[in-house]
Amino acid sequence: VLPKDFRKRSVRERKALIDDLLGNPSKEEGSTDYLLDLADVMVESAIGTMPVPVGVAGGFRINGREYAVPLAVEEPSVVAAATYAGRVIKSGGGFEAWSTDPVMTVQIAVADPPPGAREALTAGRRRIAESMAPALEKMTARGGGFRDLRVIELPESGLVVLELDIDTRDAMGANIVNTAGEAARGTVEELSGGTVLMAILTNASPSRRSGARFRVPVAGLGRGGRDGATMARRVVAANQFAGENFNRAVTHNKGIMNGIASLVLATGNDTRAVEAAAHAWAARSGSYGSLTTYWLEEREEGAETTEAPGGPPGLRLVGELELPMALGTVGGAASIHPTARKALDILSLGLDRRITAGELGQVAVAVGLAQNLAALLALVGEGIQGGHMRLHARRLAFQAGARGGDIEAVAREMAVLGTYNLETAGSILLSLHS
Amino acid sequence: VLPKDFRKRSVRERKALIDDLLGNPSKEEGSTDYLLDLADVMVESAIGTMPVPVGVAGGFRINGREYAVPLAVEEPSVVAAATYAGRVIKSGGGFEAWSTDPVMTVQIAVADPPPGAREALTAGRRRIAESMAPALEKMTARGGGFRDLRVIELPESGLVVLELDIDTRDAMGANIVNTAGEAARGTVEELSGGTVLMAILTNASPSRRSGARFRVPVAGLGRGGRDGATMARRVVAANQFAGENFNRAVTHNKGIMNGIASLVLATGNDTRAVEAAAHAWAARSGSYGSLTTYWLEEREEGAETTEAPGGPPGLRLVGELELPMALGTVGGAASIHPTARKALDILSLGLDRRITAGELGQVAVAVGLAQNLAALLALVGEGIQGGHMRLHARRLAFQAGARGGDIEAVAREMAVLGTYNLETAGSILLSLHS
Repeated sequence: VLPKDFRKRSVRERKALIDDLLGNPSKEEGSTDYLLDLADVMVESAIGTMPVPVGVAGGFRINGREYAVPLAVEEPSVVAAATYAGRVIKSGGGFEAWSTDPVMTVQIAVADPPPGAREALTAGRRRIAESMAPALEKMTARGGGFRDLRVIELPESGLVVLELDIDTRDAMGANIVNTAGEAARGTVEELSGGTVLMAILTNASPSRRSGARFRVPVAGLGRGGRDGATMARRVVAANQFAGENFNRAVTHNKGIMNGIASLVLATGNDTRAVEAAAHAWAARSGSYGSLTTYWLEEREEGAETTEAPGGPPGLRLVGELELPMALGTVGGAASIHPTARKALDILSLGLDRRITAGELGQVAVAVGLAQNLAALLALVGEGIQGGHMRLHARRLAFQAGARGGDIEAVAREMAVLGTYNLETAGSILLSLHS
Repeated sequence: VLPKDFRKRSVRERKALIDDLLGNPSKEEGSTDYLLDLADVMVESAIGTMPVPVGVAGGFRINGREYAVPLAVEEPSVVAAATYAGRVIKSGGGFEAWSTDPVMTVQIAVADPPPGAREALTAGRRRIAESMAPALEKMTARGGGFRDLRVIELPESGLVVLELDIDTRDAMGANIVNTAGEAARGTVEELSGGTVLMAILTNASPSRRSGARFRVPVAGLGRGGRDGATMARRVVAANQFAGENFNRAVTHNKGIMNGIASLVLATGNDTRAVEAAAHAWAARSGSYGSLTTYWLEEREEGAETTEAPGGPPGLRLVGELELPMALGTVGGAASIHPTARKALDILSLGLDRRITAGELGQVAVAVGLAQNLAALLALVGEGIQGGHMRLHARRLAFQAGARGGDIEAVAREMAVLGTYNLETAGSILLSLHS
């Protein structure tokens, strides 16, 4: 989708290349005036916008297709790490990925329910569906709509909770399921004989999940004096560490979300919703743990062709991640924000159609898994600070006033000196031009 | 800090007012060229920036001080809800808030530890501290530095994990604690006799917490035909619901993070880190639950003056929130990103000095708690969709081409018609100018 040397081009060349590929460079994006109006219509008491850096990680191979992945993030190394691991995983055939149907759930909580409320709600399925039908008419026509219901009794608070599952297709769906839930309030009160306390979607989205898996030959994983098999075993051990220790699990999963949340932000989706669902999912068993699974497997001679996932015979590292992923490609901020639209356009490059919500979920999970693999390889290999300090040096050079090619020159010199501070950056910059 | 009618001014008036108050309007912020260079130095394979709308919620009273709170978010109603609840809470005297010392923890995991490794590490405290001393020299001079250590044995993986607590003052501290942890690697291997698997901070930040509490007379909470006491009891019931039900807890906490993550993003801090810590904290007891606590209390006659938190005698609703909050006001993106700096400048308005990291944590938790109160009041009152659809109408008007005063005119007319779609917005806009 993108040229192989994309990451090595200058930022202006990269921008021009993307605008060229999309064929529709948005002039509005760069206009302060337009952005003020946009902010004003999107949030209240607006004063402007926060420009979050966007990088593109190219070369993600998922279910045989290639994706260029836009990531909006302030943290250094996230885009580089995703790009690196995406390439390693591609060498093993890429990701297999999957998504469930895009089913969201709205909860209607009934206070002071008389005896029999639960049964009455279960039996009232047809009337409840009818009460939501006008709100869901268009969604049903698009192939989505009401799917199922459950009734739960909560012993401590005494609430009876009706959960309604609604397929929202390519929309994230918060607006539509909340509207449907509120439309059902009256019917729920009539049927149950109680008082509705509240009606609102759950962002837990346990029925709307995406997953991804990769298999890579360990041979390519060797680094820093350790062979590939040793590195792969250390990656598995690092994942066990996260599975067994709360403090480690938090950062392990945070690293996964570095990739996922950055894609969510770039596409104008709701980062808080995806973060909440992901971390709660990590605690669903009753103790907070790692979201990923890793294992080693032996690939037998002649089992599949060398083109298939996992590459040639021998020991392979397998990584897997599945979690709730409620993303939209229509509606929400994506429908109004030009940069969110651009991000979806970039993701659709190489497809002959718009990317779907389910596919976007697969890309998100693949990026999260790649991010995790890159972090673990760095952590159990050379450590992460070497790379971080090189990137930190670039920022110091920029702060000292360096621009263009000077940034890299100053950063390189700081690395040679092993001294990372603003004064050093400043004096190196001066010496470059004296 | 801001004029009372701030939210009713036009977006250009608000922007001018803020620039005026700060006295240092950044010209760089609006330059496409500068933003490309900034993105290029902050992330890899940069192609530009994602401009996230920023609104300012004024009138937050915390520990007797007033704060204007910048929030970067794509979701409608977040800024309005924070502003509304901030005002309600101010009527009860505002927030009491607190922060622990800014202590971060780095984990060093030792694989294949021989017997006695744990004891050797515990006894080696002085040598470990010495190994980190050069990396921590400047931080120690600023009053931070090494504080404590613990050693944990993990039975399944067989790892021994050394945890080092480091006070990072006004820095978020990821870089400094990771550097210190890597500096200690060799000493940890020597002392333990094992092999270091990895050394990295934990974002769980259980020792670095901020909290906030408010007390408001229920009298002011009445709405939609329900009196204040009834509304307050329904808020308490809604919080119980979140405490007892996983699916509800996720969205309850997501709403809290709407406020917190938006402030974190506006100030250039790491949203993934704060999200991970918060949601894992919600699961720390072994089941994922509500982050907030609410209760009713009777304020006795003459107990305190009416100026004190909670206002006049009578029934009061009390809300409380405490969670890990690892934020920095120096270093990181805040040191390089002009909009992050501007956000910190806005937060420092009315102080005679820069806001500290601990104070920023207090503001974050207060905004999260306010966000939650606003959401619960809407949910157990009139429902949230009415307000959401009014805001949705503004976006549709904008998409249809309306600008300036036309946006509100089109949105009002759509609300009268009760029809919310792009076609309707378009024909109303046409009719305005025919």
